[in-house]
Amino acid sequence: MKKLINNPNDVVRESLQGMAIAHPDLIKVNLDPHFIYRADAPIKNKVAIISGGGSGHEPMHGGFVGMGMLDAACPGEIFTSPTPDQMLEAAKVVNSGAGVLNIVKNYSGDVMNFEMATELALSENIRVLNILIDDDVAVKDSLFTQGRRGVGTTVLAEKICGAAAEAGYDLKQIADLCRKVNLNGRSMGMALTSCTTPAKGSPTFELDNDEIEFGIGIHGEPGRERMAMTSVDEIVEMLAINIIEDVGYSRIVREWDEVKGEWQEVELIDLPFEHGDRLLAFVNSMGGTPISELYIVYRKLAEICEQKGLKIMRNLIGHYITSLEMQGCSITLLKLDDELIKFWDAPVKTAALRWGI
Amino acid sequence: MKKLINNPNDVVRESLQGMAIAHPDLIKVNLDPHFIYRADAPIKNKVAIISGGGSGHEPMHGGFVGMGMLDAACPGEIFTSPTPDQMLEAAKVVNSGAGVLNIVKNYSGDVMNFEMATELALSENIRVLNILIDDDVAVKDSLFTQGRRGVGTTVLAEKICGAAAEAGYDLKQIADLCRKVNLNGRSMGMALTSCTTPAKGSPTFELDNDEIEFGIGIHGEPGRERMAMTSVDEIVEMLAINIIEDVGYSRIVREWDEVKGEWQEVELIDLPFEHGDRLLAFVNSMGGTPISELYIVYRKLAEICEQKGLKIMRNLIGHYITSLEMQGCSITLLKLDDELIKFWDAPVKTAALRWGI
Repeated sequence: MKKLINNPNDVVRESLQGMAIAHPDLIKVNLDPHFIYRADAPIKNKVAIISGGGSGHEPMHGGFVGMGMLDAACPGEIFTSPTPDQMLEAAKVVNSGAGVLNIVKNYSGDVMNFEMATELALSENIRVLNILIDDDVAVKDSLFTQGRRGVGTTVLAEKICGAAAEAGYDLKQIADLCRKVNLNGRSMGMALTSCTTPAKGSPTFELDNDEIEFGIGIHGEPGRERMAMTSVDEIVEMLAINIIEDVGYSRIVREWDEVKGEWQEVELIDLPFEHGDRLLAFVNSMGGTPISELYIVYRKLAEICEQKGLKIMRNLIGHYITSLEMQGCSITLLKLDDELIKFWDAPVKTAALRWGI
Repeated sequence: MKKLINNPNDVVRESLQGMAIAHPDLIKVNLDPHFIYRADAPIKNKVAIISGGGSGHEPMHGGFVGMGMLDAACPGEIFTSPTPDQMLEAAKVVNSGAGVLNIVKNYSGDVMNFEMATELALSENIRVLNILIDDDVAVKDSLFTQGRRGVGTTVLAEKICGAAAEAGYDLKQIADLCRKVNLNGRSMGMALTSCTTPAKGSPTFELDNDEIEFGIGIHGEPGRERMAMTSVDEIVEMLAINIIEDVGYSRIVREWDEVKGEWQEVELIDLPFEHGDRLLAFVNSMGGTPISELYIVYRKLAEICEQKGLKIMRNLIGHYITSLEMQGCSITLLKLDDELIKFWDAPVKTAALRWGI
């Protein structure tokens, strides 16, 4: 294994220390338990937004902490869920009294630990709501999930909800907005190569020189199918059609009911993409795929959307939710309305996303 | 070879087409000859700034076209110099009458073709000056250069000169500024892995599982030394010390003399980094190295600079001048003064760098 690291056990801590030194105007880093938070937190009267998950997906989530996006991010070890004490301590630091929204990617460990952290925070009189992101159409249940996995839509939800929090939305409104983003966003990814975690030191999985993993998970977990390598145009066609035609997915999720003071099971159903819809198209590198190839992906994706009568109004193209050095890409499509466009366009100032300021 | 491409011959064109579709608010793309230019070019009374070079280093240079940075970028085929007709046609489109500065990385093909394009433009009554960037301390002469290679300082020069052009500097002032950036900026890189060009289809060079290429070039050309893999802290120490201690490099460059109407040979000498100096520290991924590792690089770099009494005032950390999917990093240090800080901080709106707007 060759990586720009010292001891594999120190990777997450040293990377966080580097971030803290690089961006003192934006963020502070707490170690033990690990969390990154806005340098100016808590922001008076503003709902705080927290996300987190295993490390190895950078810049998500730590690179998204700052004005107009996250108040805090809780990084676990690489590809490992963060623990409830990280989320609880982060909530204590960033909560201004207006409450905390946790944006949780649907992986069993993340879900369990964010629920536990929610109960701990509630017991300390911090208002908390959790919203799940489960947008990956590749597999319905997987190695680390019940139901679909949470991937690219998370980045978009963090941007949009962060802007809504700046605009003065209250906790319930932001939770509703986040749920809406999830029900309107769908993703799928593929891998050309595996990645290697520092702890294991060898590739997470093996792919032959003429094979791809279609529907890959962001931890290298199996996708839908191992298939023969083909052209990017065919790959994009398969990803896009799977995303666009995945209609009406229904799941039961647990959300905290503030009135009843207990977890409720709620049925949520995806909304379709239909002719004439406005979209945000997000083309993401899994890490090792260069940006030049992402634009070739985008070229074909735009053509397919046009053929389907889907209007791409906004896009995001780059390295945003990665799997270490894995080569491959993911596509996320998010159906937009005026509210989502307004919050997408709002100013943001983080290490990884910055505009308008 | 597995890449997200169709036909290897179409990679550059299709990537440019994707960029044009993705960013119509920022750029337009001309095909045959290939160049990317500001959607609002020419900008009245503003000096136009053009750069270019082989493709495969994205987002450089096309990702830097827009307000506050480049007016046009001329991409060659992958790792191949662009041709004079690209630069000439780009100059015709973006020249407002205030003249054109070509920022040229020091590779023999680029230098020759930019000089030829300069003469062609002059014969069409377009004022043009060329400034060379030759900041790579790794090797004095190399496979593709006489003298040092041009690498990371190019990105910084494009940002700083772009801001100066927006601020109303004239052509001579911007050329002087660009030369100053070059004489105050130095870089060095290293590779953990090779990259594969689509045309060749196999790795540009071979590295064993326990080897690194120290002083790598951005086309995979040999560096200073092939050495055993070691910790990131040791790698950063070696890169930083080589950069900081490379003092007083002298070279003869050819610059166009507008008064005499001919090329002049000019001796230029690097300025040293000294205790108390203010720096911009730029940590760059060669493509496949994830951002989490770049922050571990930055952590050590900041420590070394502090020990040397060098004050990092600004930084840039990410994928900016790459070699396809190569794993590794480069470090660039630029000595700052008030003028450079002002122009670094000025607004920029491009596909790859954006702030203040």
